[in-house]
Amino acid sequence: MQTGLELMKEMSITSPAKIVLLVIDGLGGLPHDSSCKTELESASTPNMDKLASLGNCGLLQTVGTGITPGSAPGHLGLFGYDPLVFTIGRGVLEALGMDFDLKPGDIAARGNFCTLDEKGLISDRRAGRISTENCKKLCRLLDGMEIDGVRVIVQAVKEHRLVAIFRGEGLCDELSDADPQQLGVLPKQVTALAPGAELTAKVVNQFLTQARLRLAAHHPANMVLLRGFSRKPNFPSMAEIYKLKAAAIASYPMYRGLAKVVGMDVLKTGMEIVEEVETLEQDWKSEHNFYFFHVKKTDSYGEDGNFDGRVHKIEEVDALIPRIIALKPDVFAVTGDHSTPAVFKAHTWHPVPALIWGNSVRRDGVGTFGEKAAICGGMGRFDGAGLMLELLAHAGKMKKMGA
Amino acid sequence: MQTGLELMKEMSITSPAKIVLLVIDGLGGLPHDSSCKTELESASTPNMDKLASLGNCGLLQTVGTGITPGSAPGHLGLFGYDPLVFTIGRGVLEALGMDFDLKPGDIAARGNFCTLDEKGLISDRRAGRISTENCKKLCRLLDGMEIDGVRVIVQAVKEHRLVAIFRGEGLCDELSDADPQQLGVLPKQVTALAPGAELTAKVVNQFLTQARLRLAAHHPANMVLLRGFSRKPNFPSMAEIYKLKAAAIASYPMYRGLAKVVGMDVLKTGMEIVEEVETLEQDWKSEHNFYFFHVKKTDSYGEDGNFDGRVHKIEEVDALIPRIIALKPDVFAVTGDHSTPAVFKAHTWHPVPALIWGNSVRRDGVGTFGEKAAICGGMGRFDGAGLMLELLAHAGKMKKMGA
Repeated sequence: MQTGLELMKEMSITSPAKIVLLVIDGLGGLPHDSSCKTELESASTPNMDKLASLGNCGLLQTVGTGITPGSAPGHLGLFGYDPLVFTIGRGVLEALGMDFDLKPGDIAARGNFCTLDEKGLISDRRAGRISTENCKKLCRLLDGMEIDGVRVIVQAVKEHRLVAIFRGEGLCDELSDADPQQLGVLPKQVTALAPGAELTAKVVNQFLTQARLRLAAHHPANMVLLRGFSRKPNFPSMAEIYKLKAAAIASYPMYRGLAKVVGMDVLKTGMEIVEEVETLEQDWKSEHNFYFFHVKKTDSYGEDGNFDGRVHKIEEVDALIPRIIALKPDVFAVTGDHSTPAVFKAHTWHPVPALIWGNSVRRDGVGTFGEKAAICGGMGRFDGAGLMLELLAHAGKMKKMGA
Repeated sequence: MQTGLELMKEMSITSPAKIVLLVIDGLGGLPHDSSCKTELESASTPNMDKLASLGNCGLLQTVGTGITPGSAPGHLGLFGYDPLVFTIGRGVLEALGMDFDLKPGDIAARGNFCTLDEKGLISDRRAGRISTENCKKLCRLLDGMEIDGVRVIVQAVKEHRLVAIFRGEGLCDELSDADPQQLGVLPKQVTALAPGAELTAKVVNQFLTQARLRLAAHHPANMVLLRGFSRKPNFPSMAEIYKLKAAAIASYPMYRGLAKVVGMDVLKTGMEIVEEVETLEQDWKSEHNFYFFHVKKTDSYGEDGNFDGRVHKIEEVDALIPRIIALKPDVFAVTGDHSTPAVFKAHTWHPVPALIWGNSVRRDGVGTFGEKAAICGGMGRFDGAGLMLELLAHAGKMKKMGA
């Protein structure tokens, strides 16, 4: 574990004060050609603007300058876990997010149903985004194989996505991906990346061969691609480091999985933001004193290049903020795990606007919540680890250093 | 090597996109008493102002807060090599900058001809800045000595400056300077700073004794002062770390030498900035995708306390920027390696204004390029390593971290 977290273990103290961290996935944007305003700047956000005027803004780099974070590094950065030190495989995240009970030796992989053309080349990496129902049916065709004493568990995630768990003795997760992540090529065989992974590679490749046979008649979902072979990591929990009783409210599995890896309780919630708010309201009297509240669609719309969709989703979040504030959190923060500008249709390295509000926050003169306004915010341009420190300090959860 | 560069090796990807980094040496200044404006703020810079308004500004500390960088640390910081980890002797830099072919065991020292008065005390550390022609003649008097099996090669650099290379078996560069860097004192003898350097110290001191004898009749250049004893370092190249094909355009030897140490190709160019621009234009169609473009005189005038000279030189650079932009670089940045305010007549620790311009840069609302304006720039106040990360990210030369 890194020095930063060792220091936090030493400095953090427990208190009932409640923190809410609202993560609007991919919040940072880039200006629209015609308006020269980003998605956040274009949205009508009276509530976030008011909080910005009462609180402190800044521009957050969850991993670091120039680094484009994937979802896991971005969130680990938000939670104060250095993403360069704490790494999680994608397969593990998917499995945890489905409430799958991963055993210590299990190897998890993330999978997609895909379409192979008549030459066996990948023509659609997402098999036309088949329905979740259809995905479940096809997963049942693959689930439960026994290969050389290894049991393969296959579960549907959502649309074309699935997770495969390999359970048996002596397995190793040092495997290359079987998903080439491009079109017009053959699916790959996995290869062992370390001595001791050869057996696992052989089992996975046999599974892929079997899968192809069993799916042959199920065009467009006539093959699976696996990637991110990994084993559950053993990170120190937010309880150990920050002495927090943390809970996660997230409608998408990966974010629930990530929350579990850092030891959060995952609350059952619905797919809509308003349902997530209801979940928060219902849990508010519990002993949880840190809530990670995740909004996904801003990122998805960014990946789709849907500028207006992002604007509307941000407005939907903003309109619900008074209900969060009505609960009287001691500290409330809004930010994202990275930028997903619609013009880029992808995650980017641009820093994300952040705001923090609470009784002890020193106002900074910023009157609106947006990328440009945040430049002159009191938190400046800061790296991931700084966010948890600010939250804890303003919640009275940090002791004085020295006499 | 530090983690930062190991990470860059992992994260950088190759692409044809071209980056131009314009380094205006000692760019940062301090306000003139009468106008309250710095050199950069006083200069008419319509082109840099326009780039600032389209791009992102910030204040760069090439080494770190409060640290006054010499030319080598300043430039290494710009190139993303932590100057606290990667150190280069001044002698080596001079030798490399002259295209001198340093062998692995060679010890290089930077030298000045100086004037000793009748008591043998230093009365002018630069010997009245003798002509380069005269310097060459005097170097021939000292070149080629053989001392205890060590051959001493002495070459003229420019004006009063020279380089001395000690070539032989078992030499060590852990030596103190012979240049006291003050007037009215005796030149020093060198001393061994580590066990094993005693032989080298003895040889160098014998050389200095001989030099005094041979130069006795050549007032004002009647002695040499040596400093910066060093051996060629073995740094990873910018090609290894960033996957860049980098080229340097610099009219002064030390900067060419520095560029070579990080593996840049050094392009032949002239002494005038316009000649450097011509060199860039001529090379533009080559495979180079990173250009380090160095302007020296702003620093020299700063050292001379010449405020107006700096202003005019900055204006000269600004007027040439349209020719660089006309080449259509993908990312263009302007900054300095440190501040050299005319009022200080020396390098200082003040952060240096920086601007970066490119398609994916998020505008920050700064409308002019200057020290005060840059405070509210989108890059904030940032350390050296951040610059290369920004340049690479905006040029599409960094991959995403995690899924």
